[in-house]
Amino acid sequence: MTAADPAIVLYRALHRERPAPLLVGLSGGLDSTVLLHALSEDPQVRAQGLRAVHVHHGLQPLAEDWANHCAGFCGSIGVPLTILKVVVDRDSGEGLEAAARKARYAAFESVLREGETLVTAHHRDDQAETFLLRALRGSGPDGLAAMRPWRKFAAGKHWRPLLDTPRSGLLAYANQHGLAWLEDPSNEDLHHDRNFLRQRILPLLRERWPQADAAFTRSAVLSADAVELLQREDVLALAMARTADPCALSVPALLELPATRRARVLRRWIEELGLPPLPGEGVAQIETDLLPARADAQARFQWRDAVIERWRDLLHAQWRREPLPAEWNAEWSGREPLPLPGGDLLHLQGAEAFPSPLRVFARQGGERIALPGREHSHALKNVLQELGVPPWEREVLPLLSNGAGELVAIADLAYSAGFDAWLREAGARLLWARQA
Amino acid sequence: MTAADPAIVLYRALHRERPAPLLVGLSGGLDSTVLLHALSEDPQVRAQGLRAVHVHHGLQPLAEDWANHCAGFCGSIGVPLTILKVVVDRDSGEGLEAAARKARYAAFESVLREGETLVTAHHRDDQAETFLLRALRGSGPDGLAAMRPWRKFAAGKHWRPLLDTPRSGLLAYANQHGLAWLEDPSNEDLHHDRNFLRQRILPLLRERWPQADAAFTRSAVLSADAVELLQREDVLALAMARTADPCALSVPALLELPATRRARVLRRWIEELGLPPLPGEGVAQIETDLLPARADAQARFQWRDAVIERWRDLLHAQWRREPLPAEWNAEWSGREPLPLPGGDLLHLQGAEAFPSPLRVFARQGGERIALPGREHSHALKNVLQELGVPPWEREVLPLLSNGAGELVAIADLAYSAGFDAWLREAGARLLWARQA
Repeated sequence: MTAADPAIVLYRALHRERPAPLLVGLSGGLDSTVLLHALSEDPQVRAQGLRAVHVHHGLQPLAEDWANHCAGFCGSIGVPLTILKVVVDRDSGEGLEAAARKARYAAFESVLREGETLVTAHHRDDQAETFLLRALRGSGPDGLAAMRPWRKFAAGKHWRPLLDTPRSGLLAYANQHGLAWLEDPSNEDLHHDRNFLRQRILPLLRERWPQADAAFTRSAVLSADAVELLQREDVLALAMARTADPCALSVPALLELPATRRARVLRRWIEELGLPPLPGEGVAQIETDLLPARADAQARFQWRDAVIERWRDLLHAQWRREPLPAEWNAEWSGREPLPLPGGDLLHLQGAEAFPSPLRVFARQGGERIALPGREHSHALKNVLQELGVPPWEREVLPLLSNGAGELVAIADLAYSAGFDAWLREAGARLLWARQA
Repeated sequence: MTAADPAIVLYRALHRERPAPLLVGLSGGLDSTVLLHALSEDPQVRAQGLRAVHVHHGLQPLAEDWANHCAGFCGSIGVPLTILKVVVDRDSGEGLEAAARKARYAAFESVLREGETLVTAHHRDDQAETFLLRALRGSGPDGLAAMRPWRKFAAGKHWRPLLDTPRSGLLAYANQHGLAWLEDPSNEDLHHDRNFLRQRILPLLRERWPQADAAFTRSAVLSADAVELLQREDVLALAMARTADPCALSVPALLELPATRRARVLRRWIEELGLPPLPGEGVAQIETDLLPARADAQARFQWRDAVIERWRDLLHAQWRREPLPAEWNAEWSGREPLPLPGGDLLHLQGAEAFPSPLRVFARQGGERIALPGREHSHALKNVLQELGVPPWEREVLPLLSNGAGELVAIADLAYSAGFDAWLREAGARLLWARQA
């Protein structure tokens, strides 16, 4: 079976998969031009719905030419085209190429209709190049894993029917059908890693191993298969380590896992929390410093704006929060919610206002509080410990005092005898609404 | 931390790992010469025991020179040397390089003493080259997995302390210490895949990615980590599919696994049985033909000298056995065990001989037997079905008849009424001893 002629590949795939209305991502380069042309030749595809989308990056001085070219091409084959201008975040810290990719897929997502399938022209050379690039970055199976022909995407699906088709097959098709396309001038630039592979390394490999692309692609597909199996077990292992708080895992449960599984579970957990990817040195530091920490010790790993802390039997992850500034304080009548510096809010519910305004301030150390039903006042430090308030809460905790300077409330966690009595009498309650 | 100077690497590793007496595999090339020299400089290593072994392949006309060179070098540094001549099986079908490797390790095994550690000079360039070679063959994580520094080997262990050290570090060490070594002329031969990578591809990759070797090695190590996790689950999944017969797995249990896990489990099972590695098309054919087979259908996959068959709810694997030749038959008095064509034996136990000789023959079809306690004779075919004799047994089953041409025994599985009575009376039994 030849997989080189995109028309044959698409014909077979279309009749096997029967995807519904198609939205083709069209750059105006060889690959997507061939994809759209071959699809447009199929009357059934046209009948079910076929349209194209071009993302206008505005990065290159020639972006306008590309958009015009796409409009001309789509007009000539009678396929409706949407052109979307996007702004690429050049300062995202993930590199221009990644940022452009992100902007492109956000644009695709914005136009994809429910039940529609996004089709892109990724081919076998892309698979092989990506595999080799990832290996040159020292990736494991997760990074080496191949793109799959199908994935869920936005309100529909994303289909890559040409993943087994070599670029040479696309070129032959384009020439045979007299298609015109634009060459991305950056493709010639050997400063781009991918171009260096494409133009220097892969041709040399193919001299000796004509099947090099197919072999790399096969390695990538087998890596993806392995990752699928690993992820099934990751999910189970993560479930075993969870606590009632999604931001906290059980240290004893984590310690029962082999270290390699633990690393995977930690990465998955952080990803699910929407935090920035946990770097390798984070995994290492959790392994050497956080997990073996004595239960009474505190240890943390910070990266970008996130932090993982060990406290008692828990590993806790969250966006890093600034502690309440030591010098900050505010007068609060209780009539309106009080915004705190980190974005939290204090509410008084069930009463109009306090009998007289309270002062809200950051912990300074040495505070004491006279709790209901106790004879003596207690050190705040001990009260927090007794209440089991974790260290990452203590730093952002607002304290409230009355006109006499007596501590009346530890956020909404504990109250002085007098303030507690007033709350009960008034049928009121305090609420510390924390920023998500 | 630099990993480039083998003396430093070994010093650190020796003091971390404290391996017992060492046996160094010495080819006479750069890598093993440096390894042995650096180890021999450590007085503690010498005190605990250090010796070398050279495998004389006899493949190259220069093999004698290599052995002489090793003897001279070991003499000069005062390390005892064993030289072992091996014969490489050039027709093993696995390639000359693999056959030479097999012979070499068999030789190492034969000289390694209990508690001794074999040390070899594999280095980071080897890891990187192997990773890339495997990717060029389309291997998945199992094939891409890195060599580990330690593994169990024969009566002791196998240690590869230089896996993170680049070849350039070994070369610098050799020059610094004025060491002499031999160059394998085949290393210059670009017809060897590995040499092509070493001399054409990797230098080009390093131009742009100076860390290419380290990156490939990292990918290989992460693949090995992943494989370790996968194998833990493979073992559990295989255990779930096992039956009382190690050669048979339960089809319903296999069908409960994801297909990628099933492929791994099948490969592992075949490996544990000592059968030749199950090829990819075998896994595919089991998936498409054997597993969905109706319980009454028969299906098989044969490769090299092995066969996997589906029968009822079982998948059965074994070395392929020739059916008893249809025309074969033999007269048997019972006095001596009777050898059958495939290597099996028939024994009569508890009696001297049969009252009169029996004829042993292969099934022709249409045989009938008069079983004890039954009024009529029964078709052999139905009897075999009732007994649950699997098809792979039926083909090699010897039948026995008496002078009157009546079928008296189906191997040692069932007897005619008359023969059964004789066996009981004589206190004798028949035994069909099958070749392992």
